[in-house]
Formats: sequence, structure tokens, C-alpha cells
Amino acid sequence: MSIVLGPNRYGKAENRIVRIYRDTPRHEIHDISVSTALHGDFADAHLAGDQLQVLPTDTQKQTAYSFAKEKGLLSIESYGLDLATHFVDHISSVAGSRVEIEEFAWERVVVDGTEHDHTWVRRGQEVRTAAISVEGTGDDQQIWVVGGLKDLILLKSTGSEFSGFMQDPYTLLQPTNDRVMATSLTAGWRFTDHTDVDWEATYAGIAAILKTQFAVVHSLALQQTLYKMGQAVLEAYPNIAEIRLSAPNKHHFLYDLSPFGVENNNEVYHAADRPYGLIQAAVLHDDATDAGPAWDSYTGLV
Amino acid sequence: MSIVLGPNRYGKAENRIVRIYRDTPRHEIHDISVSTALHGDFADAHLAGDQLQVLPTDTQKQTAYSFAKEKGLLSIESYGLDLATHFVDHISSVAGSRVEIEEFAWERVVVDGTEHDHTWVRRGQEVRTAAISVEGTGDDQQIWVVGGLKDLILLKSTGSEFSGFMQDPYTLLQPTNDRVMATSLTAGWRFTDHTDVDWEATYAGIAAILKTQFAVVHSLALQQTLYKMGQAVLEAYPNIAEIRLSAPNKHHFLYDLSPFGVENNNEVYHAADRPYGLIQAAVLHDDATDAGPAWDSYTGLV
Amino acid sequence: MSIVLGPNRYGKAENRIVRIYRDTPRHEIHDISVSTALHGDFADAHLAGDQLQVLPTDTQKQTAYSFAKEKGLLSIESYGLDLATHFVDHISSVAGSRVEIEEFAWERVVVDGTEHDHTWVRRGQEVRTAAISVEGTGDDQQIWVVGGLKDLILLKSTGSEFSGFMQDPYTLLQPTNDRVMATSLTAGWRFTDHTDVDWEATYAGIAAILKTQFAVVHSLALQQTLYKMGQAVLEAYPNIAEIRLSAPNKHHFLYDLSPFGVENNNEVYHAADRPYGLIQAAVLHDDATDAGPAWDSYTGLV
Amino acid sequence: MSIVLGPNRYGKAENRIVRIYRDTPRHEIHDISVSTALHGDFADAHLAGDQLQVLPTDTQKQTAYSFAKEKGLLSIESYGLDLATHFVDHISSVAGSRVEIEEFAWERVVVDGTEHDHTWVRRGQEVRTAAISVEGTGDDQQIWVVGGLKDLILLKSTGSEFSGFMQDPYTLLQPTNDRVMATSLTAGWRFTDHTDVDWEATYAGIAAILKTQFAVVHSLALQQTLYKMGQAVLEAYPNIAEIRLSAPNKHHFLYDLSPFGVENNNEVYHAADRPYGLIQAAVLHDDATDAGPAWDSYTGLV
Repeated sequence: MSIVLGPNRYGKAENRIVRIYRDTPRHEIHDISVSTALHGDFADAHLAGDQLQVLPTDTQKQTAYSFAKEKGLLSIESYGLDLATHFVDHISSVAGSRVEIEEFAWERVVVDGTEHDHTWVRRGQEVRTAAISVEGTGDDQQIWVVGGLKDLILLKSTGSEFSGFMQDPYTLLQPTNDRVMATSLTAGWRFTDHTDVDWEATYAGIAAILKTQFAVVHSLALQQTLYKMGQAVLEAYPNIAEIRLSAPNKHHFLYDLSPFGVENNNEVYHAADRPYGLIQAAVLHDDATDAGPAWDSYTGLV
Repeated sequence: MSIVLGPNRYGKAENRIVRIYRDTPRHEIHDISVSTALHGDFADAHLAGDQLQVLPTDTQKQTAYSFAKEKGLLSIESYGLDLATHFVDHISSVAGSRVEIEEFAWERVVVDGTEHDHTWVRRGQEVRTAAISVEGTGDDQQIWVVGGLKDLILLKSTGSEFSGFMQDPYTLLQPTNDRVMATSLTAGWRFTDHTDVDWEATYAGIAAILKTQFAVVHSLALQQTLYKMGQAVLEAYPNIAEIRLSAPNKHHFLYDLSPFGVENNNEVYHAADRPYGLIQAAVLHDDATDAGPAWDSYTGLV
Repeated sequence: MSIVLGPNRYGKAENRIVRIYRDTPRHEIHDISVSTALHGDFADAHLAGDQLQVLPTDTQKQTAYSFAKEKGLLSIESYGLDLATHFVDHISSVAGSRVEIEEFAWERVVVDGTEHDHTWVRRGQEVRTAAISVEGTGDDQQIWVVGGLKDLILLKSTGSEFSGFMQDPYTLLQPTNDRVMATSLTAGWRFTDHTDVDWEATYAGIAAILKTQFAVVHSLALQQTLYKMGQAVLEAYPNIAEIRLSAPNKHHFLYDLSPFGVENNNEVYHAADRPYGLIQAAVLHDDATDAGPAWDSYTGLV
Repeated sequence: MSIVLGPNRYGKAENRIVRIYRDTPRHEIHDISVSTALHGDFADAHLAGDQLQVLPTDTQKQTAYSFAKEKGLLSIESYGLDLATHFVDHISSVAGSRVEIEEFAWERVVVDGTEHDHTWVRRGQEVRTAAISVEGTGDDQQIWVVGGLKDLILLKSTGSEFSGFMQDPYTLLQPTNDRVMATSLTAGWRFTDHTDVDWEATYAGIAAILKTQFAVVHSLALQQTLYKMGQAVLEAYPNIAEIRLSAPNKHHFLYDLSPFGVENNNEVYHAADRPYGLIQAAVLHDDATDAGPAWDSYTGLV
């Protein structure tokens, strides 16, 4: 019986890069957090403390900042592709790379009815995300791109039921045919392609579909709502192979005002912190290609 | 030399109340965190553990939830006034009260170009705040109302300088005539009146002025920008006696790309976390009435 | 081409249970956050909104609280095993379950040199974790137990080098033979067995080894330190098949005091927030059994 | 009626300084976050954007780092005094200063029963705090020093009652003679002197008294416990003029297991997040000198 090194990777996490386009008086801004991770021939660093094959995480950082100018930062997916392929193509010890990006949205301040050229206020809604995985070089190179969002907080004040569920001796929950349903959605969608995609239009389109489906589907369960959201995205975007959704059920409990002789017709709720339900589902084409490392996020344990 | 009880107060903090108005198919939502604090004749509780004069914090919570229906929750200032005066007027041991409220904004999901009746997405910009202080009863009653906001994150990518500053042996900073200026603004404005105010219009108006001034003032320092913001608010709203502003200078450092032969014309920045500058200022009418307890926030040490 | 439901699961996250043992005057306390997730025959809930096979997340919560008394909560691994097997064994629609637990440590307040019977102060060091996965019933049942910790913040003020690394055109980092090395360690260790383990002794032993190795290994890289930590754990505990480690390199930058004529012999550092290095590695026995779902954490996307 | 500048100040917040003493093989570590704020003759910066009197916040930062070596960082109170008096004594435009410090505690890793010389694990208990205010120069100079702590999380599993409280129509709470009482204590103590104090011994002594009193006082209310804590500190330390305490009542609700036929003799609790009670009180000598700006914390609105 012997002890061996298993899967491993390393990189620089949460580089906070702001890229301003200022070639005209009307500036543009992209505000991101980018993390890079590399894997490959790094056993000597672990086993012997030998760094000869190790590209420092500081170098990964420098590259990420420089590429924001050299390659540009117009879409996080394209910038992430530039960065992820660079490490695999130019650093001999790197077998594969993963780049994860979060983008924070800004909207222009409106002055006297006109959008300002160079002043913004942060939009607090969804954080846009991207994860690019690259394995191998040359003809063997494989690339996976996942777009996504997180922290999209949605609430509907009616149009949601939950009843007819299984009961066991620990079941106290009462069925309801009218409740508040709220969530903070995380979603990721895996592209079938990465060479001919309108990243901006696709992101806007999918985010709109997710919100619309949450609104218009009469919900019998959060599970059902998630599936409808995923289905609608896949139907609209043939270049999406698969979408994965994770949705906390942020409970809003109807507050009992009857002790005070006050009627509460689904009007006053307590918004609870913890615990919360948590529903996760994937929706995909039945002929979807293999996901490979597309969903192996660079957090927690490898 | 003897030991005595000094200032003290108690209450229930961060009640998370969601109030839905659903009298028509087009619902309205108000989503708040409300904290209540009472002071008065509570020495026996501290000195002897005698609760006879103590209205439980649980009761304060129940009242806050019930008032969301009984009194309504259309503006946080008016709801806060109802709640704060209730405790002083109806609980004999209470000499004064303070109610602090944060409101989280939602905007309607747009489906096929139309705002949805009962589905919202959380707006992530400014959190609206209110703080109501009530002292005494009957003809002696005094009331202070402070409206405000926090977490209003603003950035301008040009139109900001910093130069001509004092130098001492520890001064390394270089002057600049073009920098990114960003902040996360906290502001509070003290009303001269509380009986005849359009709370909603005032809030929207002041928030717009703050953003506009940040945009249009060519900044020579964050101090100057804050003063201009405050001045513009006071000029537009005669019923505001005073405005206080607290603004971190969220540093964006120009990233040095010259080692890579890449030019950086104020295009690529590192957004730093800590440390940050922190600028605080009050702007007021020279005949403003006494602020009393208006600014004594219910956090930290009494 | 048709659209299908992929992997899915659901449950109740972050139940905050505190269990007091008070059968003698000297109480004991266990303070946990427990999350439960189920997968199985839930397609109807997604596709048709039919809850007939769905055990509510509220029921999972009730069970978690009740089991803290019914089954006891002496070790999070044993409590988690009781809970995870319960759902698979007694709920017909459940094919597999996962229970994730965090335990927050308390230590007794010391009064006049003696540990107090029923008063504690929270220890802020490592959070202990456990993850139990159960698949199938009866003779086909498979069980995986992962113990672990997170937020173990370690720092050494010397005994750490980093040099001899790969260089490319973006490499500016200078080698160092004496630096501060700090991390916030996350670790998980997978047991080969779950029926005859002293969970408490194993946890204490592994935590001690991790700290000791961090201290005594002269570090040539964080990668090397992590491997040594993992190797030492596996050598000491034959019933651990595999250990996985994730370690941010929390950078401490030597502060340049030379402009002020002040010498800085590795004495004054700036502790940076972001970005940070992030190193992940697994160390395992070469004949380790298959990990199955042991590492599939119940966060993010399924 | 004219608009004027009111109170204002500015500085650099949250400088994250780590100071290592390494003159012998047994190193010492001090890990702090320090914020500096200045007020004085800064009207021109606000009114005209003129920085001639403004010492940059970057300079304040450089000074804070350099003083960690020049003046030393053995006690946060003495380091804070050096820094706060420096700005007032040497920068002509500064009328007063405030320095706020948080110190994060580390304990040595124990290897084979021996404390390690240069490796630490972060202690997660209380954060030690200090706030130094300096006004004026020369013979007119006044100095206030407040020591303190925050995030001291305490829990007792019995020995706490709450009954006999006031009742109104919104009172639903039931009295209890045995409950879990838990808090996360914030405390500050104001010194009568700053020239001849053993800062380290005083801190350790007061922290021990606070914990001990929480343990040994049979609590009839959190108010009573806080007063006893404060009283005991003042009795033990004649050089403390006043202590202020802020204590959330972190509710632990007994979980109802009766629907499952399970008895719960104060053994299983739900630890709630929000809302929480919040109790604040000052305890002082009746001849305490004026607090001046001692308690004006540098957060929120000026």
C-alpha cells in the first residue's frame, strides 16, 4: 500500500479587474472578478518542493490584467477563452486550465433624462458568470464554455401552490394553494460551440427567459418552475446543450396576526433566513455531448 | 465614589417584514428590516432583574408585524412614525423610542414588454433607510425623522482629480488629474417636519440629485463632491434641515502594464478592497433646529 | 432531439440545531448547521408539478431536529449517518441521500481556574464538517463518510520559501527564501469504514497532525506543505482512504518602509484580501476504493 | 438662510497591518486593522476643492505602517496613542484625531506538547478593540482611550430566566424560568488615564471578568447580567471611568418535538438568525469625567 498524489490544481483567485473603454467620450465599463486555475505536470512541486514547472500565481494575475488590454474585455466568455487557452498553449507544463469570471453590472446615471457618458451606478441584480475549461493542445484541444448568472433574486406574491405531497410521521406542513415564492437563482448554461456565438445577446436573452418563465408559470412546486425555465432556454437556444439550476426556496412565512384580531389575507410575511429549501436540477438535450470538466467549479475541494 | 447605571435602551432588531398589497391584481410590495429601541424607566431591570416595567422585545416584534397591516406600510417614514409614537404613547414606562428601517427595492419583471402584476426582481442598488426618534408625550412630544440611503455604489471613469495636497515625510502619493473615483454612499437627511411630507417623492428626488451631482461635478476631491451633493439637496428641499454623508473612497489603482510593453491609458485598474479612504461630512442650514437624538443610531455602544 | 430532465436533488439547507446534554449538572453542547438532500424518483415533480413522491423539505427539517434527541448528537458523523440512512430506508421514493454538517466549537468558560458546568465561549478556530452519502437499500446499500474541517487559519512567520519557479514574459515575481505563509485550510478525509470508528478521537488526531505538519515542515511551496500534511494523515490513520485539501495562499506583502529611512527586516506586512493564490490537492492510497458521490457537495450547481 | 459645512472628518480605514517581532527565535505576532480619522481646518477642501491643508489618506496609511516599526506595536492602545498624537502634534491643519484598532488574536500551534516558535493558529474568540481620541496640542491637549472587545460569543444552557414582564395587547411571550441565553458581546471601557496603564494585563483581566460574570450570575434578564458585568469591571479597575455594553439576545427557541411523541427537556433548540433582541447599557462612576468624543465611532454618519 502506497500513498500517492491525486488530482491537484492551483491558480490565482478573485483578481478584481476593471476595464474602461474610453476611446470616445462615451466610456464603457467592465468590472470583473477572475480566477485562473491550472493543472498538469506539477507533481514535483508537491512531492519535492521543486517549482521548475510551476508558473507562479502572481504571473497568472499579471497575465489576467494585461489581457484585459491586450486581448480586450468585451465579453467575459471571449476574454476567458483568450486567457484559458493562453496558459495551455504557451506554458509547457500546463495540461489544462480553468478560468472562472464574475461580472458586476453597472448602469449609467441619468442626468436630466440623458445617460451620462462616464458615470455609473452599480446594478444590484444578477451577477453574470462564465467558466471556461481548456484541455490539451493542437488538434486534441477541447474547450467547454459555461455562461451563467447568480444572485438573481426573484419573488412572486401569488401564483404558487404546494400541495399533494408525501406524508410521513414527521410531516407537519400544511398544503397551500397561494403562497409567496422567492429564490436567489444560480444558473449555468453549457454551450455546444465557442467560435461563433453572440455572447452578449445570448446572455440577455437567457436572463430574460428565466425571469419571464418565473413570472408566467403557475407554480405547483419550485421543481416544476425550474424545469420550465430550463426547457424554455433550451428551446430558444439550440447552441445550449444543457442548463443547470440551483434555487433556494427563500421561505416567506405568513405571520399570524389573529391574536390581535387582525386579518392577514396573505399580506404580511416574515422573510426567514435559515433554514431554506434548496432545489437543484439539470435540463439537457438527450444527445448532449459529454460535459467533461465543464461543471467542476474551482472552489472547495478539488 | 459609587457606581451607577448610565444611558440604556433595548429592543428588537432586524424584523424582516414583507408587506404585500393585493387589493387589485396589480400587487405592490414593501420589503423591510425594522428595528425598534425603547428607553425610559428601566433601571429596575438592570439593578434588580425586575421586569415589571419591561415590554418584551417579542412584543415589540409582534407590534411591528401587526402594524404593517393595521397602520399600513406605504412609506417607511410614515410606518416608522406610527410604530415609534405607539410605544411612547401607550407604554407607560417608555420615555422615548427609536425605529430604524431599511427597505429593499424590487422592480417588476417585464414580460413581453409589460410589467408583471405580481412578480419582481430585486433591485440591487441603494437601500432606502429611515430613522424615527420620539421623545415625550402630549404637548411635550418631540419627533425627529431622518430619511436616507446606503449602499449606493457610484463610479466615474474620468472627471476626477486629486492634487495640490499637503506633503509630509510620509507622503508618497503622486498627484493625478484623471482618476477613477468610486464610492458606496451612505446619506441621511433630517426633515424639519413630519406631518405634511410626500415621503416617496422626496426620496426619489434626493436620490436623483445625489447621483446627478456625482456625475456632473468635476471633482477636485471627494470632499468637494460630497459638499456639492449636500448643497444641491438642501437647495431643492427646504424641508430638509441637514444632510450627512459618509463616503468610502473605493480605490481603483491603475495597473502597471509597462513591464509587458502594454500601454495603459487609464484603461485597466485593480479594484482594491482595503484599506479605503473614508470621508464624512454634514451640510446644513445655519438656522437648523437642534438634532437631538436624530443621529444616534441603534448599533454598537449606546 | 428532445429535452430531458438531468440530475436533480432537493432538501433543506442550514438547519441550525443546538443540542444540550443536561443529564448531569455538567452540560455538554453540540451546535451544528445541517443540510439534507435527497434524490430519486422525483421526475413527476419537475415535469408535471406532481408532489406525490416528494417528502417536503419541511419534513426533512423536522426529522433533523427530532433525531438530535431520538438518535442523539454526540458525533456529527454518527448523527449524519442516522439521518442519511433514515431517508433512504424509510421513504420509498428516495434512491440516495446526502447529509452535510458543520459543527461550531465551544469551550467552557473558566471561573477561578475551574471549567464552568453550563457556560461556554465560542471557539473561533476550525469549523468541523462531515458529509454522509447513502445510496440504495438493503444489501446493495453503499455509504460514504467524509470528515473534515474548514476555516482553520494558520500562519508561520518564517520557515517558508518560494523560488526556482518557471518564468515567462509576464513573470515579475521575485524569489524569496523567507516569507510569511498563511492560509485558511479546508480539508476533507474519506473513511474506508463507518461502523467502527472513534469519530471524536479521529477528528482531534487529524486536526493536530495538520497543524503540526504546517508548523514543522520547512516549506518550499504551499503545494509541498499540503502534500506533507496529507501524507502524515494517511500514515497515521489506515482507515482514511483519501484526503483532499484546499488552501488559499493568503498573501502577506512585506511593506516598503525604505522611503522613510526605516528598516523592515520581515517585520511589517500588509495582509491582502484579494486576489489570493489557491492550491488544491488530493492525497490518497493507491488502492483507495471508488469515491462515488463522496465529494459531490450540496452547493452551487448539481 | 444659508447653507454651511457642518462636522466633517476623513481618514484611511482598515489598514491591515501584521507586525512580527523576530529578534529571538520565538517570534511574536500582532495582527490588526487600524483606521485613522482627522478633523480640523478642512473647509477649503469641501468648499473650494483646495487640498493645501489636506494630508492625503495615503500618507495616513504610510504612517500607520511605518509606526508599527518605528514606535512598535506591543499594545494597540500604546500604538494608537503614538499614531493619534502624531497627526495632531505634527500636522498643522489637524485639530483632532481618532484612531480605531481591531486586533485579531493568534495562539501558538502546539507540537508534541510544546508551543511552536513561529507558527500560529487564529483564535476565533473576541476581537480586541481600542479607540484613541486626541484633541488639541500642548497644554491644552486632551486624550481619551477606550479599550474594548467585540464578537465575544457566550452561551449558557441554564441559569437564565425571563418572567414578570409587562403585558400589553401584543404580548404573546410566555414566561420562562429556564432558557438558553446567548449573546455576541461588544464592550468598551474608558480609561481615566493613559500614561501609566498595563494595557495587556487590563485587557486580560476585564475579558476574564466579563466571561466570569456571565457564567456565575443567575440571570433574571440580559439587562441585569450586563449591569453585573459592568459593575464588576468598575470595582476591579479603579482606572476605568465607564464601561458600555451592547448585547444581542441571540434567541435559541426550544423546538417542539411533541408532534413526534418525543420529549424535549430543554435539550433541542433552534438557533435563530433574525430578529434578535438588542440590549445596550452604560455603567459608570457617578463622578466620571466627561466622555468628550470617546464614544464617537468612525463609521456611518459623522
